[in-house]
Amino acid sequence: MSKKTKKEFLKEQIKHIDIKSFDSRPIVEAMAGMSFTARDLARAAEIYDMMLKDKNCAIFLALAGSTSSAGCMQIYVDLVKNNMIDAVIATGASIVDMDFFEALGFKHYKGSPNVDDNLLRDLYIDRIYDTYIDEEQLQACDQAVKKIADSLEPKPYSSREFILKMGEYLSKNSKKKESLVETAFKKNVPIFCPAFSDSSAGLGLVCHQWKNPEKHISIDSVKDFLELTKIKIKAKASGVLMIGGGVPKNFIQDTVVAAEVLGYDVPMHKYAVQITVADVRDGACSSSTLKEASSWGKVKQGYDQMVFAEATSVLPLIASYVYHKGSWKNRMPRNFTKIFK
Amino acid sequence: MSKKTKKEFLKEQIKHIDIKSFDSRPIVEAMAGMSFTARDLARAAEIYDMMLKDKNCAIFLALAGSTSSAGCMQIYVDLVKNNMIDAVIATGASIVDMDFFEALGFKHYKGSPNVDDNLLRDLYIDRIYDTYIDEEQLQACDQAVKKIADSLEPKPYSSREFILKMGEYLSKNSKKKESLVETAFKKNVPIFCPAFSDSSAGLGLVCHQWKNPEKHISIDSVKDFLELTKIKIKAKASGVLMIGGGVPKNFIQDTVVAAEVLGYDVPMHKYAVQITVADVRDGACSSSTLKEASSWGKVKQGYDQMVFAEATSVLPLIASYVYHKGSWKNRMPRNFTKIFK
Amino acid sequence: MSKKTKKEFLKEQIKHIDIKSFDSRPIVEAMAGMSFTARDLARAAEIYDMMLKDKNCAIFLALAGSTSSAGCMQIYVDLVKNNMIDAVIATGASIVDMDFFEALGFKHYKGSPNVDDNLLRDLYIDRIYDTYIDEEQLQACDQAVKKIADSLEPKPYSSREFILKMGEYLSKNSKKKESLVETAFKKNVPIFCPAFSDSSAGLGLVCHQWKNPEKHISIDSVKDFLELTKIKIKAKASGVLMIGGGVPKNFIQDTVVAAEVLGYDVPMHKYAVQITVADVRDGACSSSTLKEASSWGKVKQGYDQMVFAEATSVLPLIASYVYHKGSWKNRMPRNFTKIFK
Amino acid sequence: MSKKTKKEFLKEQIKHIDIKSFDSRPIVEAMAGMSFTARDLARAAEIYDMMLKDKNCAIFLALAGSTSSAGCMQIYVDLVKNNMIDAVIATGASIVDMDFFEALGFKHYKGSPNVDDNLLRDLYIDRIYDTYIDEEQLQACDQAVKKIADSLEPKPYSSREFILKMGEYLSKNSKKKESLVETAFKKNVPIFCPAFSDSSAGLGLVCHQWKNPEKHISIDSVKDFLELTKIKIKAKASGVLMIGGGVPKNFIQDTVVAAEVLGYDVPMHKYAVQITVADVRDGACSSSTLKEASSWGKVKQGYDQMVFAEATSVLPLIASYVYHKGSWKNRMPRNFTKIFK
Repeated sequence: MSKKTKKEFLKEQIKHIDIKSFDSRPIVEAMAGMSFTARDLARAAEIYDMMLKDKNCAIFLALAGSTSSAGCMQIYVDLVKNNMIDAVIATGASIVDMDFFEALGFKHYKGSPNVDDNLLRDLYIDRIYDTYIDEEQLQACDQAVKKIADSLEPKPYSSREFILKMGEYLSKNSKKKESLVETAFKKNVPIFCPAFSDSSAGLGLVCHQWKNPEKHISIDSVKDFLELTKIKIKAKASGVLMIGGGVPKNFIQDTVVAAEVLGYDVPMHKYAVQITVADVRDGACSSSTLKEASSWGKVKQGYDQMVFAEATSVLPLIASYVYHKGSWKNRMPRNFTKIFK
Repeated sequence: MSKKTKKEFLKEQIKHIDIKSFDSRPIVEAMAGMSFTARDLARAAEIYDMMLKDKNCAIFLALAGSTSSAGCMQIYVDLVKNNMIDAVIATGASIVDMDFFEALGFKHYKGSPNVDDNLLRDLYIDRIYDTYIDEEQLQACDQAVKKIADSLEPKPYSSREFILKMGEYLSKNSKKKESLVETAFKKNVPIFCPAFSDSSAGLGLVCHQWKNPEKHISIDSVKDFLELTKIKIKAKASGVLMIGGGVPKNFIQDTVVAAEVLGYDVPMHKYAVQITVADVRDGACSSSTLKEASSWGKVKQGYDQMVFAEATSVLPLIASYVYHKGSWKNRMPRNFTKIFK
Repeated sequence: MSKKTKKEFLKEQIKHIDIKSFDSRPIVEAMAGMSFTARDLARAAEIYDMMLKDKNCAIFLALAGSTSSAGCMQIYVDLVKNNMIDAVIATGASIVDMDFFEALGFKHYKGSPNVDDNLLRDLYIDRIYDTYIDEEQLQACDQAVKKIADSLEPKPYSSREFILKMGEYLSKNSKKKESLVETAFKKNVPIFCPAFSDSSAGLGLVCHQWKNPEKHISIDSVKDFLELTKIKIKAKASGVLMIGGGVPKNFIQDTVVAAEVLGYDVPMHKYAVQITVADVRDGACSSSTLKEASSWGKVKQGYDQMVFAEATSVLPLIASYVYHKGSWKNRMPRNFTKIFK
Repeated sequence: MSKKTKKEFLKEQIKHIDIKSFDSRPIVEAMAGMSFTARDLARAAEIYDMMLKDKNCAIFLALAGSTSSAGCMQIYVDLVKNNMIDAVIATGASIVDMDFFEALGFKHYKGSPNVDDNLLRDLYIDRIYDTYIDEEQLQACDQAVKKIADSLEPKPYSSREFILKMGEYLSKNSKKKESLVETAFKKNVPIFCPAFSDSSAGLGLVCHQWKNPEKHISIDSVKDFLELTKIKIKAKASGVLMIGGGVPKNFIQDTVVAAEVLGYDVPMHKYAVQITVADVRDGACSSSTLKEASSWGKVKQGYDQMVFAEATSVLPLIASYVYHKGSWKNRMPRNFTKIFK
């Protein structure tokens, strides 16, 4: 039996779900009458809709995990495009390895968790659970980042500033239009990656610094924190939609504390929704309940809802629900990017 | 601050979701193009539809956990009513404490996991995660079981035989029509509870035996196993839809082995879907993968799919999908109950 | 490459851990000063020791999952042998497929979760996560059960009565001495399997009934419930050590309610420890917290502790701790089996 | 009933476990003969010991989650002190909020997950699952970081460089000796926090930049990545001990890819152990198996072991095992900090 070729492995492309193409409202409304995760899901959808209706509320998307490559990529684009998100805090992987990567014309593929990983390694195929990526394309993505870095004035940048440059680059060079990076660039929605180097971008930037040991750009994560805190100070009331946990969750929550430390009396996040499979009992931030966050003065109790589920199965329902409710039609864009101009 | 009263606690009734009232096909079909749980969910729906299309395939529902009281009760009724299930293997709680209980006119109520359980205890309110039950009503349910037992000829019964009597009782006395017990009775769909005493029924039956120490009925779980094996022998090809794991999952899987031990060459279950949050790594049957089951000769590999999710959030999508696909319209009822007449 | 043979798969035997051979007290005491699962584990050990010190407290072991075949089998024997457990409520698999099976001279083997299950199937090897069993030996175990059944007077038996006969059988025929079934027989510690047929015993008993359609024994699970309730009534104060959840957990908890229904005013279980990986959020009994159980009037709050962990990694620490504390030395055996003579 | 005071809440200090005070070898060796998590735990301990015996192998500790505040803090110190770890990659919280925090003389306290978080908020008490922290002390910790930042030449620093300064500061000012930061400083073991700002350090540094808008230090996460990659290039063979997942896990794994991108042919990590409760099925890096990592060319298959457990319950066993095996006695310190001098 001859072994499968790379082409045979990378055959079926992931298709990103389009929340506009179906209306989940009847299902979500029916789930509101149930118990367990169904009711939690419905409550989370309702709280997100409350954020959209609340004229004073700025909305943050905190994004960790691999939902972008797993078929949710277009959801995030649709949310930003329709004024349903005012700022994004994400892992580098979500923004660079997945979104920017597809904007360059590359794809994700359906795979299997039951596979010989040594064979994948030999073929230069990377695996995320049941999704495959062409490692050679990922290295092309690294190099696109390096090229952008090479073109910039050598000085410290926040990840937001650098991702803005990536958006600008895409606005001229993208193969797939409507990536999150390009859409956010056009909509003045800032994107932060507090652990930016921990991604394909990091690989590109390491090359950049290695080749330019004396004069190079750097990514200042303190500047990220300061900029995001300035947004929170300006926003006042706020809500957070969290997919997964990790650094993005912690970072956006910490802005409340940071503002206080800088002498500003800002309110806790008034609304908070988190979708996660993380286990609360290991004390990691990813899994800490929103109730726990309230002890830290980060999230106000009342309009908070954890949904313990793998996000691909529930986020499409929640997002389609709020999209079709249409409360976003009356929202004004915040254009937070303009604060820093 | 005065304490909440029982009436205040038991205010909002659980409303069971109606899979006929919305069409989940566009969502489930879109999920098929994604990764992670979304794709697993879509694959599970597709496999269930394959079972319904396969003219030779008998379909078993294995039911554990508390989804019936959590808003999925009507789903199971709709599946049985529309020839989508040919036999049910369930926990006693699902059948007696939840379904038979509601058939008697009692209700489940929305509750909260963050509550003072000592206060609930004082008020005779039982809690299942975020669902409340009136303990006094549950004791009335026990007594209805006792009444049925008192009326029967003293001898060993399979749980199926006893549940048939419960269905007959409901056909005359039910307050809520369309319970699973009554529907299955009318549709000749047998229901087995291999651990029948582990439920409200057990409490009723213990009273029955206590009051009638010499002449009383008994529930013979071996007879359950034998009857279910006879069904499997008759059915030949089969598929299993499993909600949760526990004894029901194990029991239906073991019929393949039992038939073999009795000298019959029956095929493994050809199709298998399981929805569970259980963790595979503790070696309990609830969480063992369907791949593992194939080592035991119970489930054939190929058309099997685990969906790692809390069932209330995914079962409505799967069930609505197959309902609206309509493959069940061409299925003949198996009337397995008639085997034992 | 030729395929692995059965002999090559079944090479390394599982060795059951001996809690007497090491003293875990210093570790467990150090863990008491920590947080998270370490502190929970230490608290659970302390509560078990409190049960042993409390002269009025009868102790129940509720046993689900596959820890017996996974190396904990001797732990349960040592607990029973040293008066640390007064009654056992277990799954059929733990008692028959694992313990009685090894008493007959058969073994469990180290395996791998990453294996071709179709190959195992062809070789008649069953797999429990990373443990292998010889299916032919398991069928010999079924037949031993059938042989015992064939020798008994045809009438309904509680599982306890039947397991007593198995203990008697082993006292004459066992190849491995010190099985749980034989030790419990000798120590007058009753063993209940409320879902007895859901095991290798079920296969043996199905054969027995099939071959003897008119005159055969039956297993009455109502009688189990009644007998266990009588024990609870006699015991008064009680504590429960639960490994996993499932039917055993539910069954022993329900005795409190059953006693009340029969008109006895028995106390809730005063002490309760549960080790489980189950997820609280699916509303299944396996995972329901002990706090939730108190709403049902089953477990008193105060001396209850959940340990969210896979049992093989924490039970040896807890059991060795209480063994070396030695509080059991002053305990009187309850000889609950004698109630029924 | 009057409410509990802050002093009453912060009463019982967490005591960090001392792996030198007990010898876990007999337990771990007995667990090697078992199945499930016990066997995984024993295999992980054995693989860590193999790393220590392998003269050519550099050992990285990747540290995420809150085990440091949960009683494992001294473990990490002992590992570094005894040449069992050559470099640390951690979350900012582990290093600053927990370790540096205690070095300043502050403490963590035993708490409860079942508490009124609004009351904690009013009292300025932060909660991590069942652990309490005095928020005022945490703010003092922020300010100590700010003070260090104020004293440094304004330019970009890697987190490693900054943490080195923290170690130097502690060598003069620490109240608790033997913190990880100070010990690593003295042992020339570099500590990296790739998401450094996401911590108490971030709060201190934000203040620093806010007060010094023109001339301030910055934290360059690209420099972190480059430095860590240089260490991997120098180390050649390597092993990784991972507690939790998150950014630290990803970062150390990516150095293999980074070295390759820079034109160096470095081997994958030869040994890898990860302790985590994360769920593999959400595709997040925290939970991705080491087998999956091998598809990315990061971790070599063969000497890799996942232990699915909450770390406080298993790490003390693993660490005590390797400590008492003594293989570290023949290891030479790598002094990786000196590379950058």
